[in-house]
Amino acid sequence: MDRPSTPDIPDVIARIRQLLEKGDMEALSAELKPLHPADIADVVQDLDGGDQVVVLKLLGNERAAEVLTEIDEFSGQALLKLLTDREVVSLLGEMPSDDAVDIISSLPPEKSEKIEAMLPQVERERLQELLEFEEDTAGGIMEVESLAVRESATIQDAITLVRESADEIENVQKIYVVDQHGVLKGAVAVLDLIRHPPDAPVAEVMMTHLIKIPVDMDQEEVASQFGKYDEFALPVVDKKERLIGRITVDDIIDVMEEEASEDIAWIAGTREEEIGDPSPIRISRSRLPWLVAGLIGEILNAILMSRYEVSIQTAVTLAFFIPLLMGTAGNIGSQAAVVVVRELALGEIDVGHAGRRVLKELVVALLNGVILGFLLFAIVYLWRRDPGLGGLLWVSLVSVMFVAAFIGASVPLLLHRLKVDPAIATGPFITVSNDIIGLAIYMTLATYYVSLVGS
Amino acid sequence: MDRPSTPDIPDVIARIRQLLEKGDMEALSAELKPLHPADIADVVQDLDGGDQVVVLKLLGNERAAEVLTEIDEFSGQALLKLLTDREVVSLLGEMPSDDAVDIISSLPPEKSEKIEAMLPQVERERLQELLEFEEDTAGGIMEVESLAVRESATIQDAITLVRESADEIENVQKIYVVDQHGVLKGAVAVLDLIRHPPDAPVAEVMMTHLIKIPVDMDQEEVASQFGKYDEFALPVVDKKERLIGRITVDDIIDVMEEEASEDIAWIAGTREEEIGDPSPIRISRSRLPWLVAGLIGEILNAILMSRYEVSIQTAVTLAFFIPLLMGTAGNIGSQAAVVVVRELALGEIDVGHAGRRVLKELVVALLNGVILGFLLFAIVYLWRRDPGLGGLLWVSLVSVMFVAAFIGASVPLLLHRLKVDPAIATGPFITVSNDIIGLAIYMTLATYYVSLVGS
Repeated sequence: MDRPSTPDIPDVIARIRQLLEKGDMEALSAELKPLHPADIADVVQDLDGGDQVVVLKLLGNERAAEVLTEIDEFSGQALLKLLTDREVVSLLGEMPSDDAVDIISSLPPEKSEKIEAMLPQVERERLQELLEFEEDTAGGIMEVESLAVRESATIQDAITLVRESADEIENVQKIYVVDQHGVLKGAVAVLDLIRHPPDAPVAEVMMTHLIKIPVDMDQEEVASQFGKYDEFALPVVDKKERLIGRITVDDIIDVMEEEASEDIAWIAGTREEEIGDPSPIRISRSRLPWLVAGLIGEILNAILMSRYEVSIQTAVTLAFFIPLLMGTAGNIGSQAAVVVVRELALGEIDVGHAGRRVLKELVVALLNGVILGFLLFAIVYLWRRDPGLGGLLWVSLVSVMFVAAFIGASVPLLLHRLKVDPAIATGPFITVSNDIIGLAIYMTLATYYVSLVGS
Repeated sequence: MDRPSTPDIPDVIARIRQLLEKGDMEALSAELKPLHPADIADVVQDLDGGDQVVVLKLLGNERAAEVLTEIDEFSGQALLKLLTDREVVSLLGEMPSDDAVDIISSLPPEKSEKIEAMLPQVERERLQELLEFEEDTAGGIMEVESLAVRESATIQDAITLVRESADEIENVQKIYVVDQHGVLKGAVAVLDLIRHPPDAPVAEVMMTHLIKIPVDMDQEEVASQFGKYDEFALPVVDKKERLIGRITVDDIIDVMEEEASEDIAWIAGTREEEIGDPSPIRISRSRLPWLVAGLIGEILNAILMSRYEVSIQTAVTLAFFIPLLMGTAGNIGSQAAVVVVRELALGEIDVGHAGRRVLKELVVALLNGVILGFLLFAIVYLWRRDPGLGGLLWVSLVSVMFVAAFIGASVPLLLHRLKVDPAIATGPFITVSNDIIGLAIYMTLATYYVSLVGS
């Protein structure tokens, strides 16, 4: 069974297309057999609708369900439309509850209601419970399946439970131990089932210091708990400390990708939704609000500049440096903002020391301002032989950078304190306001300079 | 043993400070006992040097080693200076090899050489092997510890192995199966040790379709393998497919945070190193190259503008809109670049379809350009009652956005093809070049307009 670490997907797709054309189902089955569900998902997404259904049916319910959970939302929705309600229901039955819920909530309301009604009652109730949690909290990403025994159970009881539920639950890390009210009391690692004698009571060998995730914890915070405690799965509890589900680290990886995409999208002035492959109209819609906000800011800039028309007309040279000062202000502001936002996201900033954080940005701005300003002075002197102009630019640059750093660092901290997502501050808003402030400072200094020097 | 899901660290720190002052070691021990090593690390980082050492010694070697691996690099380096070489050596002995290597490579060269020489030979050789791999490849993040049995072994043999190595290896997911040359042949999940009879040969129950990580794979790609295949641990193999280590998902979470920080830092025009809490001088140094590059670009802008001095003097109004056109070009370019870079990082772009991706950005730019341009036209008309100027701005905006989107989308794709990290394209480089191109397009159109309309 030699094969490379990961198969060459385009190759596999080509072979599978040929087999589909020939209708050679046996060879097709053999081709699919060694593939990981995630790889089959890659293959399926590249096939036409009819062929997708053929492949899924050939896989059998259990593997087809695994493949379906790996397919991205857009392709998945299209594929589900090609299946009968009955087929969808039996696939859902094979999935962990968190994946089943994701698929149900991606369906159009009429279809999802029909399918929910067709589910066995136990399952329906379980899913409905999950559907009630906010999508981006622990409740929204957990699966309700978890293995639990009572405090009075023995290691042998736990082993029996694991054997019996082998097919239903994957990636079992720990068997949880609960009391008669379902309150989480401890956990036994699967490895410990091997290490201890079968007749040992679980209560004696269990770990009692568990990291528990409250069901309403924000998913970003859940991810940072996983990052901090290096666990592969964590139990989720309700307000009364009752075990209601668990979160596995593979879901956390998805959360981290999503949150990083979201932050990056904010910085770029767009939305996370557009990463993937939506239509140009969707992309356009997700970017327009930012662009309009930016445009309005820039028009305010233009209006501001028009008030200095006389200064500009007497010394056009001054205008040449407007973009330079505005651009640098924008860069400085966004450097400070992005770093502060990232540090907040990673929990690196102690909120009590916010003032110190801002102060540090100001020191950096002064340092860099003096260095850049000197460079600017030197270049302008070589170009225009005008030390007065060079000096004006040097002073302007330092002032503009100082103010821009202050705004860039303090606005995210302020938003964080007001419980608003500080990532907003990294978008065009800060850039545009820094543009305006940069322009105002420069034009004020420049006008004063013109009045001093004459022209 | 009731305690909240995660302890209130500032509270704990206050209590521990009191106990340290009183010198009540017994109570201090009791306070530390229920804490997770990651929480103790948080506490230790807030204490003074002397107290840090007291706490570590109180924990005993094994737990102290766990705490040390959770402390961030800056604090860790300071703390290691307070320990004797002998103490450091015995702590390293308790750590997984990947963590031990990280600590050794963070030490100053004289110290790390002395400590390496003091390690037992087996361990020294193991670590030296790891030190040879590039830091950001699979070899650089793997641990060499992994459990493996021969193909001829039985389930009982595997169980015995797991029992014997209980203390050395944590988070065992799978027992790997190798042939006489050490070539990886399959794996048995810990759960399967329970499910199968003890006398079953592992060769019969093992999975043979394994995802294997080549030792020289880039860590970002390793992370995407984990994201794709939802595994908790993956085996690392050399060129001859021999098992040489394994990577666990908790290390991948660190990699993902690091890579996201790196991408975000590039976008902001700084370096990942500055996230955390370094000195202003370090921050300044990591930002200056970008700022200088930006400044030089902006000076080229100023020089370019000076060549249109006459146009500007005859119609100063035209100058008011220079920042607007340059700013919008910068925004558009960075939106396109950031999204393309993110999609490349997540493996969402099929490189064969790069042309289609660029085309889509152009469609979006045209769409948004026409809409924004109309808005601009309307506002300028209301402000200056000059439909000619409004028309000029509309045409300029659409052209500038079109070109900016083309550059923003195609440069990262080009860099990716040239095997250069496309994230570079999201920094000030693209913004500045878009600024210049935006200015050139606008001034050319504006000069033509002035010559047409007169003034």
